[in-house]
Amino acid sequence: MITLLTDFGISDHYVAAMKGVILQICPEANLVDLSHLVPRHSIEDGAYLLAQSTPYFPEGAIHLAVIDPQVGAERRRIAIKGKRSFYVGPDNGLLVPAAQAEGVLKAVSITNKDYMCKEVSSTFEGRDVFAPTAAFLASGLEIEKLGPRIGDLVQPAWSKPERSDDRVQGRIVHIDSFGNIATNIPAALADQWRHRMTVEVKLGAMCKDAIFVQSYADALELGLLVLVGSSGLVEIAVNRGSAQVVLDAKLGDTVTIVWDASQHDRRQQ
Amino acid sequence: MITLLTDFGISDHYVAAMKGVILQICPEANLVDLSHLVPRHSIEDGAYLLAQSTPYFPEGAIHLAVIDPQVGAERRRIAIKGKRSFYVGPDNGLLVPAAQAEGVLKAVSITNKDYMCKEVSSTFEGRDVFAPTAAFLASGLEIEKLGPRIGDLVQPAWSKPERSDDRVQGRIVHIDSFGNIATNIPAALADQWRHRMTVEVKLGAMCKDAIFVQSYADALELGLLVLVGSSGLVEIAVNRGSAQVVLDAKLGDTVTIVWDASQHDRRQQ
Amino acid sequence: MITLLTDFGISDHYVAAMKGVILQICPEANLVDLSHLVPRHSIEDGAYLLAQSTPYFPEGAIHLAVIDPQVGAERRRIAIKGKRSFYVGPDNGLLVPAAQAEGVLKAVSITNKDYMCKEVSSTFEGRDVFAPTAAFLASGLEIEKLGPRIGDLVQPAWSKPERSDDRVQGRIVHIDSFGNIATNIPAALADQWRHRMTVEVKLGAMCKDAIFVQSYADALELGLLVLVGSSGLVEIAVNRGSAQVVLDAKLGDTVTIVWDASQHDRRQQ
Repeated sequence: MITLLTDFGISDHYVAAMKGVILQICPEANLVDLSHLVPRHSIEDGAYLLAQSTPYFPEGAIHLAVIDPQVGAERRRIAIKGKRSFYVGPDNGLLVPAAQAEGVLKAVSITNKDYMCKEVSSTFEGRDVFAPTAAFLASGLEIEKLGPRIGDLVQPAWSKPERSDDRVQGRIVHIDSFGNIATNIPAALADQWRHRMTVEVKLGAMCKDAIFVQSYADALELGLLVLVGSSGLVEIAVNRGSAQVVLDAKLGDTVTIVWDASQHDRRQQ
Repeated sequence: MITLLTDFGISDHYVAAMKGVILQICPEANLVDLSHLVPRHSIEDGAYLLAQSTPYFPEGAIHLAVIDPQVGAERRRIAIKGKRSFYVGPDNGLLVPAAQAEGVLKAVSITNKDYMCKEVSSTFEGRDVFAPTAAFLASGLEIEKLGPRIGDLVQPAWSKPERSDDRVQGRIVHIDSFGNIATNIPAALADQWRHRMTVEVKLGAMCKDAIFVQSYADALELGLLVLVGSSGLVEIAVNRGSAQVVLDAKLGDTVTIVWDASQHDRRQQ
Repeated sequence: MITLLTDFGISDHYVAAMKGVILQICPEANLVDLSHLVPRHSIEDGAYLLAQSTPYFPEGAIHLAVIDPQVGAERRRIAIKGKRSFYVGPDNGLLVPAAQAEGVLKAVSITNKDYMCKEVSSTFEGRDVFAPTAAFLASGLEIEKLGPRIGDLVQPAWSKPERSDDRVQGRIVHIDSFGNIATNIPAALADQWRHRMTVEVKLGAMCKDAIFVQSYADALELGLLVLVGSSGLVEIAVNRGSAQVVLDAKLGDTVTIVWDASQHDRRQQ
């Protein structure tokens, strides 16, 4: 089983060419699209989607992901063997959150031309390098054959969330097609305010009151909601509406959740 | 074989997560997308697409459909065994037209947690309940194992078409990507006017003459056409144009076909 | 293995119905989407995408392509056996560039009703004729069974590129989702100017300087680029931008590359 995640879009032949290359090498491969509509060059969004999806796939699945603003430049091409799955793609942080979540056993730099297409174009490594690599792994090739082992995977470049006494600041890592906003703020950083009724959401010059809920189903009222999603990350939503529209949010924006630190915790009242 | 129909869109990881869950339980499942671009929360449109598609699939296929405005609320989750296929989804009318068209043999309320994901999120039953249910059915599970039998499926809420002496009134149940309009008016209700040259199409304040044709190929002229489509339902189209644009139509609109009841039937002339 | 290319879009049930028909006849068929977002009725764009994709698929693959402005009219339905693959679709030039690139062994007009759906609608030959034909070929049917052999395939109607002393004129055959423009100008016609630093790109009233590069990776500067792509055709691009936007280009536009014929070739200096 091979999954595919790219920012190639779905109107061109690029994804189909990758699939053709895979099926020439491994005709019995079961191909599943994760998404090909990741916003162009958005490594952070792709990393989020990959980490959200791969835990649901069977052990041994090969996850091929190509979001690669530096294609043709000197960044490495890598394959990672995790505790459950394999990852193939550029060494730019894209694969790391998903691979680290399950545990990295081994990582290699893909250099062995025996497992690439005969002609490697400088602009389409998805087809010429990553697709055949994934197909050979699916056919049972040992990951060591692809190239030398490496220990210094490029880590995600984006900033980590920060918490102070009355606020936590993070980034918008994904906005789904319903306008729900996913941040990079983990549940652990929501401890201090997740039992309060209300928080404030700041985004740019905007500051809006929001209700904290345990789940979407708890949201009886309209208005802005903050919750810890099934992702384990803080999400911002509007019941039957679009948080993206209400907050004029876009991918990569900084978002701050502010609470009244002087207010008693609801649990303690 | 499992088909998938949702309103989840194709830019997120939601459909992929469902596929991953299915493939963990039933790795040999053959997955086919019906559509994931059903307009958000449009049960009626989803029911139309499902009923139009499932007759073309092999016997024994499992059709998983999730358009679920009430996710997390008290509506039941159901599985239906029809004469040709299985249906899995929310009990909100979505599955009923397709299932009734082939004949319903048995319907159950899905309550058995043995066949759900371990943690069932309140917001993503597609992944946590419906996907594993479909996968277990594909693996050969008997439908009775999923939960108690039910006899009172929620019927589609939308109104039925009505006919009087000189007109029939129905609803727009689908507008395809070419701007062709499908109504819920069955061929039987088109008897009185299908042999006339012209009819009038009323939609909101608009009233336009249209030509009745047997098929798209008969439409030599430009202009508005009314025909009984391969769906067995009345469709409105514009030859090499968009009926949606010409009529400013949208999903759920009421549409009325009016004919001159005093005019003799062409067949009798 | 069967690939599918259409202009049917992805929000309707049309492609799913075709897949259902295929899977009823040949349940073990491995279906791969090439694209269903070819601009409506754009045979030339579809022919380009098909020719770009099929060389990457395994030998024996069946390529089903339906872009068919004349559906229901008198044009023939054809199947082609090439040196590597099979092609099924309308006889309007769509299949010819891909099939000729690998070499045509045999072509037939599809007339045998034994290998069509029982009822053939005049508007949906994709489902009723081409899908079952492809499925029977995938099941091992000999192509001769489909109908009489033909020798006069309809050739692509679009004009060929023309070269004079200081310019070559061609057409835009595809614009990808990144705004990169593919022309129908083959590498051979780029001989005279591919070693110059700069050329002019004319499109409508617009005339812009462009840099000729060997590959995208060579493009260090911003601005308009001309290169011979991995397609073997001349492409026009903007480094980290959209050539479509910069040139206000659309599919089918005439594009002219002009060079200074008096300037010495760089190779000769």
